[in-house]
Amino acid sequence: MEKKKKFILPENELPTKWYNIVADMPNKPMPMLHPGTREPIKAEDLYPLFAKGLADQEVNQTDAWIEIPEEVREKLKIYRPTPLVRAYGLEKALDTPAHIYFKNESVSPVGSHKLNSALAQAYFCKEAGVTNVTTETGAGQWGTAMAFASKAFGLELAVYMVKISYEQKPYRRSLMQTWGAQVVASPSMSTKAGRKIITENPNYQGSLGTAISEAIELAMSTPNCKYTLGSVLNHVSLHQTVIGLEAEKQMEMAGEYPDVVIGCFGGGSNFSGISFPFMRHNIKDGKKTRFVSAEPASCPKLTRGVFQYDFGDEAGYTPLIPMYTLGHNFAPAHIHAGGLRYHGAGTIVSQLMKDGMMEATDINQLDSFKAGVLFAQTEGIVPAPESAHAIAAAINEALIAKEEGTKRTILFNLSGHGLVDMTAYDQYLSGDLGNYSLTEEDIAKNIEKLEKII
Amino acid sequence: MEKKKKFILPENELPTKWYNIVADMPNKPMPMLHPGTREPIKAEDLYPLFAKGLADQEVNQTDAWIEIPEEVREKLKIYRPTPLVRAYGLEKALDTPAHIYFKNESVSPVGSHKLNSALAQAYFCKEAGVTNVTTETGAGQWGTAMAFASKAFGLELAVYMVKISYEQKPYRRSLMQTWGAQVVASPSMSTKAGRKIITENPNYQGSLGTAISEAIELAMSTPNCKYTLGSVLNHVSLHQTVIGLEAEKQMEMAGEYPDVVIGCFGGGSNFSGISFPFMRHNIKDGKKTRFVSAEPASCPKLTRGVFQYDFGDEAGYTPLIPMYTLGHNFAPAHIHAGGLRYHGAGTIVSQLMKDGMMEATDINQLDSFKAGVLFAQTEGIVPAPESAHAIAAAINEALIAKEEGTKRTILFNLSGHGLVDMTAYDQYLSGDLGNYSLTEEDIAKNIEKLEKII
Repeated sequence: MEKKKKFILPENELPTKWYNIVADMPNKPMPMLHPGTREPIKAEDLYPLFAKGLADQEVNQTDAWIEIPEEVREKLKIYRPTPLVRAYGLEKALDTPAHIYFKNESVSPVGSHKLNSALAQAYFCKEAGVTNVTTETGAGQWGTAMAFASKAFGLELAVYMVKISYEQKPYRRSLMQTWGAQVVASPSMSTKAGRKIITENPNYQGSLGTAISEAIELAMSTPNCKYTLGSVLNHVSLHQTVIGLEAEKQMEMAGEYPDVVIGCFGGGSNFSGISFPFMRHNIKDGKKTRFVSAEPASCPKLTRGVFQYDFGDEAGYTPLIPMYTLGHNFAPAHIHAGGLRYHGAGTIVSQLMKDGMMEATDINQLDSFKAGVLFAQTEGIVPAPESAHAIAAAINEALIAKEEGTKRTILFNLSGHGLVDMTAYDQYLSGDLGNYSLTEEDIAKNIEKLEKII
Repeated sequence: MEKKKKFILPENELPTKWYNIVADMPNKPMPMLHPGTREPIKAEDLYPLFAKGLADQEVNQTDAWIEIPEEVREKLKIYRPTPLVRAYGLEKALDTPAHIYFKNESVSPVGSHKLNSALAQAYFCKEAGVTNVTTETGAGQWGTAMAFASKAFGLELAVYMVKISYEQKPYRRSLMQTWGAQVVASPSMSTKAGRKIITENPNYQGSLGTAISEAIELAMSTPNCKYTLGSVLNHVSLHQTVIGLEAEKQMEMAGEYPDVVIGCFGGGSNFSGISFPFMRHNIKDGKKTRFVSAEPASCPKLTRGVFQYDFGDEAGYTPLIPMYTLGHNFAPAHIHAGGLRYHGAGTIVSQLMKDGMMEATDINQLDSFKAGVLFAQTEGIVPAPESAHAIAAAINEALIAKEEGTKRTILFNLSGHGLVDMTAYDQYLSGDLGNYSLTEEDIAKNIEKLEKII
């Protein structure tokens, strides 16, 4: 018998429904609050900004399974189902009795899991008669996904890209333009929010908070236009559950069930995607799988933040969100894992964390790159700096298993590849990268300013 | 019934043998000649430079099937079998009755088909007790493949990278370094050949010919060291036949057989890989499939070159090779499809061309990028500039089918993705790219200088 390296699902086993864990949660997440009235947000409150289908998904607490439209499935088939891979090479290098599996989301044409939600969001916008969409992007992974998804469904997309990334990551900008998107460096002169900042500080390098404000403003002031977002929100996590639903079937093909499931953590969407389908068996079938989020030590909202109502953006335009947060004014260090530089966690994950249904671990930048290089050399794929955090956490689990001399089945999500992030590897290999340590004071500073609503 | 987008082979259907078309060719390729004695080259003549297993494959004219070592198959399983994909999106955009399929070699962790041969070459070097290997790389696709393959089999690799690429394509350099290779800009001070050139011309930007000379010199002067090459040679084409062998089974799954098979053309390895397994049915079973190589209009050896003995490198160190050539001193324009900038075609393909068993078409740079962008927007994958030539040729075939109102089943090889080549797309989208026209005089210039051995 040949050793199986990859577990591949046939195309017709692409999930037909997304899994909405909220319906099964013993304690539902607390509601988002309107920033003015402090009243719980209803779907209707979100309609001006998001397509109706997405706003309805955002607040759905009753349906555990939500149909994936056939048009979305057709587009997902460009790269899905994605492979589940047994990391024999990594296991051998670690000399561990653990079995390490990873779900390979890097095979998406945009190079990451982000396309899973981008295609769904573009579809629901199109279906609602929307012609134009806006979004923001930091490192560029979400923007590239939304660029292809918009083209696939015939929408015009404008992306506000954080200025420093726009200049430092020209490949991501070119990718978005190749797929037909308008890309604007943020802050820009195209919005009031942008003009105000440029007037006050012409050399401002931009931030995700500013880019969100610009994208929202453009969406609100353009006819037939909606705003889209790549993480944090419930409907984004929902769309990402195709990852875990496929992995569940594939682990069955491998004849194993994970003892621990790991995802890197920015706003929570890829972690939710790989975890929630397995977590339902903890909730409903008494399974004891551990779920570990791997966040950067320089942005440790789950390991060192507080559970509190806070804004989703720096400027405070969004609803108040019940979440683990470092405070919406927290400015994370400029680590290369740009997709993990976010001050808060989504509401669902925050509630699960509060209820002890998952764990969090933090990873130093240098440890993430060390893990990334070992993975590249043993499994071939150069991981995205974000995904390297999940690999580092998986390696830690495998080394504990080795120390204990016990078998452990580890599953992590390889959320994307790093082929467009080679500057980061270059700096790591040259010894030019460092870690960023946070003192208790650094962490307390922005948290103390928060209004105590909980 | 769901429309099938991808045709996926199970892992155990990865071919167990390579297909050596030479054994089945009605006219065998003429022998390579020793540059000094003008005697036909024998396997033993190649042993000093290449691992024995590879040298033996190079001259094998009798065995149609050659066993793929199990260790090579294990490593190939990291990304193989690769998907065969029906390009519904492209078909729709062209409004053509043609059915377009592509073999997606871009899913390899190095981003191209080059890894198919790199793994085999590294294995045979390792098996022969070799500890160190050398190679050269122009655009960087082959160098990255050889970097991972060397790491996978525990070899030390030194890559001479053409200086202008070394400076303009830092991502490819970083990739090689991440996989553990030594990368040196060529010309370098580490070889006599390099020192001579630098002394004469300190600002020389390098060429593939110089890099080959340096890699050969280092291999010959280092104990336990062999040289490796990514195209042109027979054993490289042999290793690439896994592409066509898989595609044959996958076309069967799709219930179709190709009327035309297309590959872009540099030295010939990816074209051979997709074509030869289907061509055997033309030779043996009376099939009438057409085989079309797509070369750049700026380097048109098959469409406008001559069949003649010529050197494989600029300096004239290699054996004399019977091939279609533009002359070994032909300096192709600096098009972005760096992998297609080679003056000659391999001996097998040259013989097949001479015997009318295949066709050649040439594609302008702007047409290749126009095709590449259309493909990216309809199928999601941004193609390598090289692969975009195959896409352009496939589009031409599909448009002829449309004009004729006939069905035509088209299969092309997507040899790689362009995520590390976004500078090229950037220039195309900005309108900064041009075509390069060649006059009859440009073409005659280097051909006239060739010694007429045929």
